[in-house]
Amino acid sequence: MSFTEKFSFEHFNKIFTPQSVAVLGASNNSNKLGFHVMKSLTQSGYQGKIYPINPGSEQIMGLKAYASLSDIESSVDLAIIVLPAHLVMNIFQECKEKGIQGIVLITAGFKEIEDPNGAKQQEQLTELANEANLPVIGPNTFGLLNLHTDLNASFTPEFSKLEKGNVALVSQSGGISHLLGFMAMNLQVKMSKIVGLGNRLNVDFADMLIYLAQDPESQVIVLYLEGIDNPRELIQATENIRGKKPVLAYKAGRAKTSNQASVSHTGSMAGKQEIYEAAFRQSGIYCLSDSERLLDMAQALTVCSLPQGPKIAVLSAQAGPSMIACDICHDFGLDITTFKPTTQETINELLPPLALRTNPVDMGPAWYNSSALQGIVRAVMEDENVDGIILLTMFASANVETVPNLAELFLEWDQKKPLITCLSYPSVIWDDTLQKLTEAKAIYNLPSPERAARVMADLYHYTLLVRK
Amino acid sequence: MSFTEKFSFEHFNKIFTPQSVAVLGASNNSNKLGFHVMKSLTQSGYQGKIYPINPGSEQIMGLKAYASLSDIESSVDLAIIVLPAHLVMNIFQECKEKGIQGIVLITAGFKEIEDPNGAKQQEQLTELANEANLPVIGPNTFGLLNLHTDLNASFTPEFSKLEKGNVALVSQSGGISHLLGFMAMNLQVKMSKIVGLGNRLNVDFADMLIYLAQDPESQVIVLYLEGIDNPRELIQATENIRGKKPVLAYKAGRAKTSNQASVSHTGSMAGKQEIYEAAFRQSGIYCLSDSERLLDMAQALTVCSLPQGPKIAVLSAQAGPSMIACDICHDFGLDITTFKPTTQETINELLPPLALRTNPVDMGPAWYNSSALQGIVRAVMEDENVDGIILLTMFASANVETVPNLAELFLEWDQKKPLITCLSYPSVIWDDTLQKLTEAKAIYNLPSPERAARVMADLYHYTLLVRK
Repeated sequence: MSFTEKFSFEHFNKIFTPQSVAVLGASNNSNKLGFHVMKSLTQSGYQGKIYPINPGSEQIMGLKAYASLSDIESSVDLAIIVLPAHLVMNIFQECKEKGIQGIVLITAGFKEIEDPNGAKQQEQLTELANEANLPVIGPNTFGLLNLHTDLNASFTPEFSKLEKGNVALVSQSGGISHLLGFMAMNLQVKMSKIVGLGNRLNVDFADMLIYLAQDPESQVIVLYLEGIDNPRELIQATENIRGKKPVLAYKAGRAKTSNQASVSHTGSMAGKQEIYEAAFRQSGIYCLSDSERLLDMAQALTVCSLPQGPKIAVLSAQAGPSMIACDICHDFGLDITTFKPTTQETINELLPPLALRTNPVDMGPAWYNSSALQGIVRAVMEDENVDGIILLTMFASANVETVPNLAELFLEWDQKKPLITCLSYPSVIWDDTLQKLTEAKAIYNLPSPERAARVMADLYHYTLLVRK
Repeated sequence: MSFTEKFSFEHFNKIFTPQSVAVLGASNNSNKLGFHVMKSLTQSGYQGKIYPINPGSEQIMGLKAYASLSDIESSVDLAIIVLPAHLVMNIFQECKEKGIQGIVLITAGFKEIEDPNGAKQQEQLTELANEANLPVIGPNTFGLLNLHTDLNASFTPEFSKLEKGNVALVSQSGGISHLLGFMAMNLQVKMSKIVGLGNRLNVDFADMLIYLAQDPESQVIVLYLEGIDNPRELIQATENIRGKKPVLAYKAGRAKTSNQASVSHTGSMAGKQEIYEAAFRQSGIYCLSDSERLLDMAQALTVCSLPQGPKIAVLSAQAGPSMIACDICHDFGLDITTFKPTTQETINELLPPLALRTNPVDMGPAWYNSSALQGIVRAVMEDENVDGIILLTMFASANVETVPNLAELFLEWDQKKPLITCLSYPSVIWDDTLQKLTEAKAIYNLPSPERAARVMADLYHYTLLVRK
């Protein structure tokens, strides 16, 4: 069954922006997942109606509890199920009767267990769900989040601390969703939606890709995959996205042990990494195998313009870090460009002879002279021999004004070409300036010259990939 | 001249643990470096005597100012010079007469400038300093720090925010000292001493290496190099350290552009990277080319025992992150070990069949059962087929007790074999436990499975390197 025959954009939207949510298995007992799901929903700032369902309770977290779905008078968009596996079939039937639009099935114990009954039950559920035209996220999932509507439909209330942004994550593993979610908090990567696909009853990567391709709040889509059953479907789904909305893949299973682990974990062979990588390349999916680099790149794609070529300028307030950045550019196939003669003349006028004045440029001698600094940066920005700028400044007492003095220029420039920085400083000093620049997406700042140069290289290689 | 003929350990100790410091060029004017040096000294908690010297001032930062060194009645151990280059020769003479034990020469404008007079002046200063048996850090340096005596003899007062620890940094570049210093603050890498060698008048890498080899507060020595003039001297200096105190090198100059930049920056060719790398390998110096990985490794060496072989156990609270860790182990030449039969039996008793029970072990099903968790971890710790353990736990509401419940076991284990973790969680949740474990050096925690596995690999490859 192809995506279009299954669920429409509007249909999926009912799952991610529901007017009302019922929690089947809601609980006041903190040992139950139904407790944590209720905590997530009620503490996330979600504005829709929440209906806890538990025949043994009158109230759950201050909300009236219902004995069953049919006791709710109004219509319900989304059902979150945290009941034991053997009850799920009947609950699906009730969902169908109630006119539920979508299900998040957190319950585990289906296809992933050794007992063949698990797979069999999952098949029966799939049949019923498809018949009822019911999209099901899961089973065996931690849930999903839509940060833009403050919907936390997961068993992890702490995910609501994530900052709203434009990176969507679709993951096969709850562990990896948690890893990337917590890392995103620390790295200030801003998310739109997170969805744990679990055993993928009738919603798979391809479906999410087509949905998110149309989702205005998601500018970048990150997939975490172990093994997938329908690579062809996924590849087809990328056809309409290629070059429009970046898709990044984070893939486990290079090592024999992790490939074997994948079989036990999700019932799918991770499969030969090279085959996946070739398929991803062909589909314009950019593959990364390091979580930090992945998140750096995801956030960069929501901030930076794309470099139209490999010619990079490295501007630095100190020589050492500029050499490190040049080394990484070199390792990753970027060119340290030769400036146009007029640019070079401008720089030569603004810096004394002792400085590094060709690319990389050591702007150190201009620390005290903000108009010279601005002159150098502006000349380099407007040089057509430059496809992207890496700007590095390590704080020193004498250059404390350097970054504030460049802020207006950065804001005006507005990423006409990608501008990636490593402004490194002891806490507080440039926090205000950096916050302003970050909010305006004028720069993308990273904590090391290596990470700054590497993300520039990833942006360039992504550009090449989707241009093909 | 070899090190032993120049300066003794005690002599260098006068620079790093002086009883008294004079600042030549101290200033109340925040546009002068002499202001920032005074701020560093007076605000760092340094307990020795501070003598600001400036003939135009009576008081500087609340301290009595002196017109010249000779006006100070007591003896002075260390002189920090921030005066213009043309005054330095006379000041050196005064230092000699005063019986100063060592100099930090922050002033720039010597060998690094285009004017050949710069190099000539540096030569004359070298002659005088050697004659007077005066070790000189610099010229063209940001200064030095000894965090254990709260001595901040640099123009960057903010360095005093660094945590005291056991990683020493010797750098050819002030920019890189600042980069690594600020990164260390964020990565919670704890430092002992930082020294910027600048133009290396008569104190070079070899001298610092021999000094730091004997420094009980420095357990790991990190060198940042661009190009060096006396590689042979450096290599000889490592002879007595090899296998006793780890030395890490962070080296710029792989790319043609950065090599050229090095010539302008320090007057030294960075030189062919392969030649340096071969020389480092031969000397037991472990070379890394990424600042974050460098700092991860430096801190790990102060915390972890060394893996005696490549056989690694991956224990995880979730399957996904364990696969990522296995992939990195595979990439970096570590083996995902096969447990001894008795270990495997223990794990099989403690985990249900559906779990990943062979290495990597998914301890997820034991979240609620702390004695099962402890049983698995203990069995793996004691397995002689295991050389090191990577333990990963992404927080979830249901496993909030997992990490606290393992804390005692970790403390008892006390790094008998290296135990590296990635305990990932939204802020606060495990902060107390982690702080306790970190202070006791029971674990080394990193924010991603990749970084945890990579540092294990670096520890292993370092062990191989020095065993040769």
